Amino acid sequence: MSRHFADRLAEACRAKGNALCVGLDPRWEQLPKALRQGHGRQGLEGMARAFEEFSLRVLELVAPLAPLVKPQSAFFEACGPAGLAALQNVLRRAREMGLITILDSKRNDIASTAEAYADAAFAGILVEGQRHPVWAADALTINPYLGRDAVEPFLVSARQAQGGVFVLVRTSNKGAGQFQDLRAEGKPLFEHVAHAVGAWAEENPGACGFGDVGAVVGATHPAELARLREFIPDVVFLVPGFGAQGGSAKDVAAAFRGDGLGAIINSSRGIIAAFRPDAADWEEQVIREVQEAIQVLRSETPMGNLKS
Amino acid sequence: MSRHFADRLAEACRAKGNALCVGLDPRWEQLPKALRQGHGRQGLEGMARAFEEFSLRVLELVAPLAPLVKPQSAFFEACGPAGLAALQNVLRRAREMGLITILDSKRNDIASTAEAYADAAFAGILVEGQRHPVWAADALTINPYLGRDAVEPFLVSARQAQGGVFVLVRTSNKGAGQFQDLRAEGKPLFEHVAHAVGAWAEENPGACGFGDVGAVVGATHPAELARLREFIPDVVFLVPGFGAQGGSAKDVAAAFRGDGLGAIINSSRGIIAAFRPDAADWEEQVIREVQEAIQVLRSETPMGNLKS
Repeated sequence: MSRHFADRLAEACRAKGNALCVGLDPRWEQLPKALRQGHGRQGLEGMARAFEEFSLRVLELVAPLAPLVKPQSAFFEACGPAGLAALQNVLRRAREMGLITILDSKRNDIASTAEAYADAAFAGILVEGQRHPVWAADALTINPYLGRDAVEPFLVSARQAQGGVFVLVRTSNKGAGQFQDLRAEGKPLFEHVAHAVGAWAEENPGACGFGDVGAVVGATHPAELARLREFIPDVVFLVPGFGAQGGSAKDVAAAFRGDGLGAIINSSRGIIAAFRPDAADWEEQVIREVQEAIQVLRSETPMGNLKS
Repeated sequence: MSRHFADRLAEACRAKGNALCVGLDPRWEQLPKALRQGHGRQGLEGMARAFEEFSLRVLELVAPLAPLVKPQSAFFEACGPAGLAALQNVLRRAREMGLITILDSKRNDIASTAEAYADAAFAGILVEGQRHPVWAADALTINPYLGRDAVEPFLVSARQAQGGVFVLVRTSNKGAGQFQDLRAEGKPLFEHVAHAVGAWAEENPGACGFGDVGAVVGATHPAELARLREFIPDVVFLVPGFGAQGGSAKDVAAAFRGDGLGAIINSSRGIIAAFRPDAADWEEQVIREVQEAIQVLRSETPMGNLKS
């Protein structure tokens, strides 16, 4: 990882001709039945093994097509320690395949604690003067509620490892507005957060013009997405909510810069849970969903301007 | 766990005559040297074993004195999968000793994902129709930025297991005000969150009058603590920042109801890192720090009204 996160990201998107991120959110009841067999009786450890097998297979299917994957920590954590070993293996394999990895765990805490989360994600943990990698992700999602001093350790550790940080700005859930829409000094809270993210991103710009601090902005709020794109032009947007959560390609078009950079469009359930668990051809369906998502995004958004 | 969380909490505080929570935030460089020996060369797995040994020893030292412990997930996660196995063992042993456990991991995500975090903390994870406990904590800290629909799964799962949830309202870090102090509709964001927490707590009151949804309010903001105590009287406050972070007993006095219930005062570094790593008498020092914290809190706050 020897180059600026935003430049590595831009390169990966150009190489594949798209900015689709495949969300790895494995759920037991949505796994292909064949993969569940033999694991169900082993409780959480069996579930962890099934999640790992499934995720590794999905990596093989999507790596030729999409530049990014985003494992959702919650589902791996739900298996206990074995799930986190599975998560490590999935992250490691994704990196080996040249995929950019975003660990979606929405962490934060006061600075002295946030440092432990940050070093686990990026720079590695110091034991007796030696650094040990834990997740070694390319990027991590974080929560802004505690303010800049709590975000700082993530920036420091990410910058040490040429990684990136995506800060929750406007989440994709229906109730997102309860606090995020509260208007202070003439604008909603999420715009205050967006402005702060814009300033943090400017501290360390890549050659492509984007910073190493991005913003999570849901596809389910297209007007706000467009507005934010205008006033924080140098911030990469990680856009969840496309597909299964209701966001269309048209909804996410405004997230991109004219050249097709600046946005990452995530689809999780629309790809890894788009088949019936008993479908014999689930792997073909995963490939088809990825191809269709890329096609519609290329034809209806500036992503089509990415040279592939 | 057959009774309302707030009632179990009240009973535990009355039984010990105090509401001190011992924070388990193990850091490699602050561990007693004797405990580090032999583990340092084994990297993260060695660190996990040292964290577990240390935490289990601390549990034995503090269980006769304090009613609660709060393991900080970040430090255990930093050891990777082995750290999470250690965390499970520490939580299990604490429960066996009759301590109330607060898992401090400040989680949140959109509802469909939050459910996985919530069931891991409380009700257990379903695999083939069977529930498997993961952390089985009595309570969990969560982040409010995503709004009520993202908090909902935590309430549901906590209520199923007679557990409790502590929502970040006013954090103890210096930069907490960047977003939490933004004024909307005449009051700061953290008061909007506090009002919401008050409403959530009212949904399920215990016999003691407190709800099963609490608020994290830092000891480093005593005026705000007093103000919040007034307008959300039925919400239990989890108060970090006492001791090492600068909050005094006088600062936290306003967090309590007159009868000494309603607040949990956490001390982490002031107890588990108050000794020099090479001190032969570190265990005596831990006991002494706990006893002194209890004594000063009993003499300078309404906690002294708890019958022991």
